[in-house]
Amino acid sequence: MKVVISGLGIIGGSFAKAIKKYTDNFIVGINRSRKPLEDALQCGAIDVIGTVDDLKDADMLILGTFPEAAVNFVKENASLIPEKCIVIDSAGIKSEICPELSAISEKYGFSFVGCHPMAGKEKNGFSAAESDLFVGASCILVPGNAKQSAVETVEKLARKIGFSQLVITTPEEHDRMIAFTSQLPHVIACSYVMSPVCPKHKGFSAGSYRDVSRVASINEKLWAELFLENKDPLITEIDLLTKHLLDIRTAIENGDRNQLEELLAKSRKVKEALGE
Amino acid sequence: MKVVISGLGIIGGSFAKAIKKYTDNFIVGINRSRKPLEDALQCGAIDVIGTVDDLKDADMLILGTFPEAAVNFVKENASLIPEKCIVIDSAGIKSEICPELSAISEKYGFSFVGCHPMAGKEKNGFSAAESDLFVGASCILVPGNAKQSAVETVEKLARKIGFSQLVITTPEEHDRMIAFTSQLPHVIACSYVMSPVCPKHKGFSAGSYRDVSRVASINEKLWAELFLENKDPLITEIDLLTKHLLDIRTAIENGDRNQLEELLAKSRKVKEALGE
Repeated sequence: MKVVISGLGIIGGSFAKAIKKYTDNFIVGINRSRKPLEDALQCGAIDVIGTVDDLKDADMLILGTFPEAAVNFVKENASLIPEKCIVIDSAGIKSEICPELSAISEKYGFSFVGCHPMAGKEKNGFSAAESDLFVGASCILVPGNAKQSAVETVEKLARKIGFSQLVITTPEEHDRMIAFTSQLPHVIACSYVMSPVCPKHKGFSAGSYRDVSRVASINEKLWAELFLENKDPLITEIDLLTKHLLDIRTAIENGDRNQLEELLAKSRKVKEALGE
Repeated sequence: MKVVISGLGIIGGSFAKAIKKYTDNFIVGINRSRKPLEDALQCGAIDVIGTVDDLKDADMLILGTFPEAAVNFVKENASLIPEKCIVIDSAGIKSEICPELSAISEKYGFSFVGCHPMAGKEKNGFSAAESDLFVGASCILVPGNAKQSAVETVEKLARKIGFSQLVITTPEEHDRMIAFTSQLPHVIACSYVMSPVCPKHKGFSAGSYRDVSRVASINEKLWAELFLENKDPLITEIDLLTKHLLDIRTAIENGDRNQLEELLAKSRKVKEALGE
């Protein structure tokens, strides 16, 4: 396959490196700035630096850019994308972009399969890309009305580059789950480190601090976009968390040991039931 | 030295294993239930199973029990503890117990040095104890009025068994910092997993979920005690977190991208300034 990757950040770059490592597909890189393209070419993550003209005979287009930018890229270049081409995105939100991208794909005849690799790091850019970033991770697919053959092609590629679990879902279920599993932990981390004692934590901290604060090393432009494009599910999760924090706070304030133990035991049981 | 360890849970058990591994001190184990003692004897973590009579010629007493139980143990057996003995606890709160233990030590002539090893796991009991649990960790010491020679003995032992950082502080500073670095992450984790979508997270989650939820596998009896014994600092931290969550929520609800990016950038800068 000729695979065009638009956007060589950590995710697009990792797709490039992984596809080169685990398959013999030909990879064309496109990126707004030059540096990641040159780095990717030099380390063999892409075969050539391309332009949108490379879309004309592409078998697959992987969108590694921010969600809005991904939609705009497809809108602007839809007429160049051939019918055989399968377009996948990698964005962390789906309701805001998948229906629109599906509609464009149907109009122009190519396939669109929404894709969200559940992998990442608290770093950004091509320099953070890794060929094994997806190994053992889950790949969430939002196929909409895409042809079954296109979905199968994406699934096969996902397995080849290391994903160990494939989940097929709707934009709405994706966004509801991601608000909890991914966005809320970022909101928590950013809120957590704003405590005035945080800068003095060293010597007083261990794994708990490290784990909760990790993703506060945030790319604020990306995550502000993701939060705003998933407003309702995320606000629902923030409100649930706040309520549950308040329950614990109330038990502490009242010195109610039974109630406090009961609340904590409920949480422990959720983890136990999950085998975690 | 003859070291008596009272309470062979994960922390007391790890003290036993580490002291056996890295020093040639003689270790006596005391525990409410028999099983951990037999396990510890069998794996060589202790030299003998003892009784409180072993305190009579002990050079050091390490309290591995819950905070209240530790205070009660010392109260009940203070008259058996010789003047040469250095008593250290391992509790996660200090204001509630250190002044009382210091007063008892002064009355009976032995030394008390408050101690909080910043190490642990989301597991409990002797089976979770490890000889290298403290390697690279910070050891917080609350010496109060203890003799300098006693503090130095504790420091030397701490270095020998792997602690890489020693912090000397007051009960109040300890409790203020621990409310943030350790207790709040436990409150967060327990509140987080109470979301109704948590049981369905698999396939939709990765590192962020794992890290925030990890310590929800909580020992509710221990942590309820710790939370209640550090009520004011912990409530302060829960309220700060709730306020910062609300700031982000408001920016999302208002669709205020600038404000949201600014809030997230502030958090990123806190982490950057810490070199994290």
